[in-house]
Amino acid sequence: MKQLSLGSIYHMPWLEYRHATPDGDIVLRLRTGRGDFDRVAVRIANHYNFPDPFAQGQTLTMDVAFRDDLYDFYEIVFPLKDPRFKYLFLLYADGGRVFKLDGSGLRAGENTFDDISECFAFAYAYPAAPMPAWARGCVGYQIFPDRFRRAGEAEAGLEPWDSHRVQSEFRFGGNLNGIREAILYLKELGVDMVYTTPIFLSDSAHRYNTFDYYQVDPLLGTEAELKALCDELHKNGMRLVLDGVFNHSGLGFAPFVDAQQKGRDSAYYDWFFFDDVEACGYRTFSHEPYMPKLNLQNEACADYFLAVGEYWLKACGIDGWRLDVSPEVWPDFWRKYHSMMKRVNPDSLMIAECWDDSREWLTAGDMFDSTMHYVLSRNLWKRFCQRSITPAEFDAAVNGAAMLYPQRVQDVLWTFLGSHDTQRVLTRAGGDRRMLKAAAFFQFTFMGVPIIYYGDELAMEGGADPDNRRPMRWDDVEGNPMRRHFKKLAKLRKAHPALRVGAFHTWHVGADGLYAYERFTKEERVLCVLNTGVEDVTLQLPLPEPMRSQAAVRDLYGEHSLPVWSGFVEVKLSAGEGMVLK
Amino acid sequence: MKQLSLGSIYHMPWLEYRHATPDGDIVLRLRTGRGDFDRVAVRIANHYNFPDPFAQGQTLTMDVAFRDDLYDFYEIVFPLKDPRFKYLFLLYADGGRVFKLDGSGLRAGENTFDDISECFAFAYAYPAAPMPAWARGCVGYQIFPDRFRRAGEAEAGLEPWDSHRVQSEFRFGGNLNGIREAILYLKELGVDMVYTTPIFLSDSAHRYNTFDYYQVDPLLGTEAELKALCDELHKNGMRLVLDGVFNHSGLGFAPFVDAQQKGRDSAYYDWFFFDDVEACGYRTFSHEPYMPKLNLQNEACADYFLAVGEYWLKACGIDGWRLDVSPEVWPDFWRKYHSMMKRVNPDSLMIAECWDDSREWLTAGDMFDSTMHYVLSRNLWKRFCQRSITPAEFDAAVNGAAMLYPQRVQDVLWTFLGSHDTQRVLTRAGGDRRMLKAAAFFQFTFMGVPIIYYGDELAMEGGADPDNRRPMRWDDVEGNPMRRHFKKLAKLRKAHPALRVGAFHTWHVGADGLYAYERFTKEERVLCVLNTGVEDVTLQLPLPEPMRSQAAVRDLYGEHSLPVWSGFVEVKLSAGEGMVLK
Repeated sequence: MKQLSLGSIYHMPWLEYRHATPDGDIVLRLRTGRGDFDRVAVRIANHYNFPDPFAQGQTLTMDVAFRDDLYDFYEIVFPLKDPRFKYLFLLYADGGRVFKLDGSGLRAGENTFDDISECFAFAYAYPAAPMPAWARGCVGYQIFPDRFRRAGEAEAGLEPWDSHRVQSEFRFGGNLNGIREAILYLKELGVDMVYTTPIFLSDSAHRYNTFDYYQVDPLLGTEAELKALCDELHKNGMRLVLDGVFNHSGLGFAPFVDAQQKGRDSAYYDWFFFDDVEACGYRTFSHEPYMPKLNLQNEACADYFLAVGEYWLKACGIDGWRLDVSPEVWPDFWRKYHSMMKRVNPDSLMIAECWDDSREWLTAGDMFDSTMHYVLSRNLWKRFCQRSITPAEFDAAVNGAAMLYPQRVQDVLWTFLGSHDTQRVLTRAGGDRRMLKAAAFFQFTFMGVPIIYYGDELAMEGGADPDNRRPMRWDDVEGNPMRRHFKKLAKLRKAHPALRVGAFHTWHVGADGLYAYERFTKEERVLCVLNTGVEDVTLQLPLPEPMRSQAAVRDLYGEHSLPVWSGFVEVKLSAGEGMVLK
Repeated sequence: MKQLSLGSIYHMPWLEYRHATPDGDIVLRLRTGRGDFDRVAVRIANHYNFPDPFAQGQTLTMDVAFRDDLYDFYEIVFPLKDPRFKYLFLLYADGGRVFKLDGSGLRAGENTFDDISECFAFAYAYPAAPMPAWARGCVGYQIFPDRFRRAGEAEAGLEPWDSHRVQSEFRFGGNLNGIREAILYLKELGVDMVYTTPIFLSDSAHRYNTFDYYQVDPLLGTEAELKALCDELHKNGMRLVLDGVFNHSGLGFAPFVDAQQKGRDSAYYDWFFFDDVEACGYRTFSHEPYMPKLNLQNEACADYFLAVGEYWLKACGIDGWRLDVSPEVWPDFWRKYHSMMKRVNPDSLMIAECWDDSREWLTAGDMFDSTMHYVLSRNLWKRFCQRSITPAEFDAAVNGAAMLYPQRVQDVLWTFLGSHDTQRVLTRAGGDRRMLKAAAFFQFTFMGVPIIYYGDELAMEGGADPDNRRPMRWDDVEGNPMRRHFKKLAKLRKAHPALRVGAFHTWHVGADGLYAYERFTKEERVLCVLNTGVEDVTLQLPLPEPMRSQAAVRDLYGEHSLPVWSGFVEVKLSAGEGMVLK
């Protein structure tokens, strides 16, 4: 008999393991040791159905939704008219061995009495709040305003746009009107949402040290120009997300100036942390004295920044806030911020900048809608750039990431290949454009919101900050093959709900680097096939149902058909190339 | 070499596995397979300490805090001046094998490069909000108002106090002035907090179907009498907690009457769920048509009940709300309720009625402070009443319960042997008073807030509802030995912070039923020894440090000394008896 890893069995009656969808469907998940069980089922019953709830209950078989090197993650999604129930899991191994897991633990034996009071509870499965429809699986574009595009003549003191020197404090003079000029470019590329790093008054090029949260930096434009940009984006079916930097301010922020001057006599003294944690005498972002940390446990301070958030939602009609250094901020502030945003604009999106496991911030539905999904990015870099993990390790990491959150959250996670805080992906890949192509293919065919860091679609290079913030290469747009690739991916995504908001399921992982995964909704199913390796691959790939019964399948990316032989298709892919089969 | 259960290794960067205490200390926990590792440590570093954070980091050894049949739960508690850090775990097994666990998973090999970006993050460890000092480890007393005590003459229509018939709708005429008369009795018993089941206008004896949330039921008394009760309790150093029934109302609740009469034209229509889930045409508590479910997602409805909660906090100065059927209520309502309570009275306590794993409701600190700890009660019943689990199984369950929440939450969990919703503990134990004594000994020497269900201290019997609601036996108070036992336990608890708010650690689990566990704070440490079996036990029990080096130890319960021989003490305990050694 198989040796079972009983210690691997895990369920938590909350979070990614137990939740409801916006449609009110119930999602239950269970982890077991990989390959341990022949069948896993869940028995559910309404505990108010006296005297024998289980007599009116159901037993539902679960499927393996995700899998990594150690574990199988079983899942079931089902509707329930009366959303009150209790449940236990049944695990069948070879040799007729049966185990039960309920709230009091794991026990052997099918005929153990099912005591409803010992079961796990989903006391009342309220449907989750739906995410804004526009945000689910859309295509985003990140702009560093000083470096994207300038409208109007260059002023004195600006660095020339084509300069090869990029230092932190150089100003290249990109501005809001420049972004507005580029709207057609963005629309053609397939962008649905623009996200700009900070635009408010500051003395740095990056503007993460805000001086005045109510003033657009005059170097970028005016409030009217911001409004005009937002309106024009909306007219073109696009959305605008701004960067809210509320973990810390800049030195020129009036309350900080007052607090520093007057000390304890200042009304703003408790908006900051004056103590000896940092050598400068107040807490900061990182150890940077020019970024004093804000105290959002202070009610007046919290109210101030809630008002800032509300002002720009109303004044310019922006569609969301990306919130800087969010996990270092007092969590209750984000709960208030969430309430404020949904009250002012229920269709707005609230995005964390959290580089790690973000269950704390995303899963209970009371704070952020989304986060910057660095957990995924790190694995994309390892596979496509550093080439430090095998296809199997990459697949395990992707499955782990897919398991972390409910599908509702996965739909709006910001996936990216690089940002203003990292090397550019092409540079990280040693300039190998095949790997940029492959990484983008994966990004656009995986769950979430692919964010293009401005210029990656032109295969721009750039090392770590500040080199990753080079001016956009407008002279390299025409006929750029990488841009064609991104356009095609964005178009495919738009046309196919399965790619946009479908679930993910691994289909094939080859040691040669060939990786195939299904994306599917209730209505549509596609099979993505990607050569993640550096060698050409030819393979007879078995197809999932219903494709295996078809005479031919269509590659939506390459726009050609492939014949199906006995349920197999011949796949020939060069390094970094991919297909989307339907 | 030992076979390791690698699949058992688990850490979550949140909840019971990662949190801060009210003092700002950091708590990290890690689960492994039981007995797998010789040493487990955590490596911590501030990721802002460029360029090599680990060079300035620390490596701290963790101890096994809890243990069950499958797992060891390691824990470490440490202070940190700068509350930002990342961390990874190091696990050392025999044969020199070393494993690392960080945010990207488990890997073998000590010399694997520590990449700070792959580590788990505690981005900013804000100290948790402290629990009200009065509530931590205090002694509670639950009263069913119609059955506890009557002041004044019996009115016509009441059932005689000494009646042997107890049916649901009988009225025995207990009242608020009766409770007030009993304050000295409660004080003598050692009670710190009184919790009454509902007292507002209703047509049932239990009053869980409220007709008017603003009116004290005239059968119980007046608002002035409630205020007088509360004031008198406060004068005597006691607190009052009321029962808030907001999951559902009664049929006589004016908004329900209006909604039923006017249908969709009623302003209150959306305060309820009129649909076909229940045969009666509206959703209910359980399937009871006389308890229509309230819709607290409706803002006006939520505001109404927030105002109710606030009214009684202010009007009578009550100290807390126990909230009925809380996990079936819209969670955001509880977030608002929490804010309201802490705003009106930061020293008030908010208690869930959740019968199951309550991490969802307790751990993030944004909803309930406490819950009725049925998870523990069920295991007390299994060991002391049904005798269906072994000492080792009981210990595993107790350790599992101890692991579920942070210590801060454990300190205020309501532990109980029975309630108005269950059989009385003595009846459940088949009338065996030794087992009632043992269960109470455990309850009073374990973490949390022991709640005495009125009359258990007199060894009252009572089967399932309604028999568990018999009138209090005031004629059986004098010289009652069970009452002496409860008084002694309450007094011990009051005198010893280790018993009141100390941590818990299993010391000895004997197949004979002898169970020993340490309770300890930074200042005090005691060893509780309890015979959980039905036979007398004699054992040479090894003592923990520093007791093993003492010449003698004192039994605080029996008030006598025992000599220590080579680190052992001779324990002789009859069934159900216990000692508290110091």
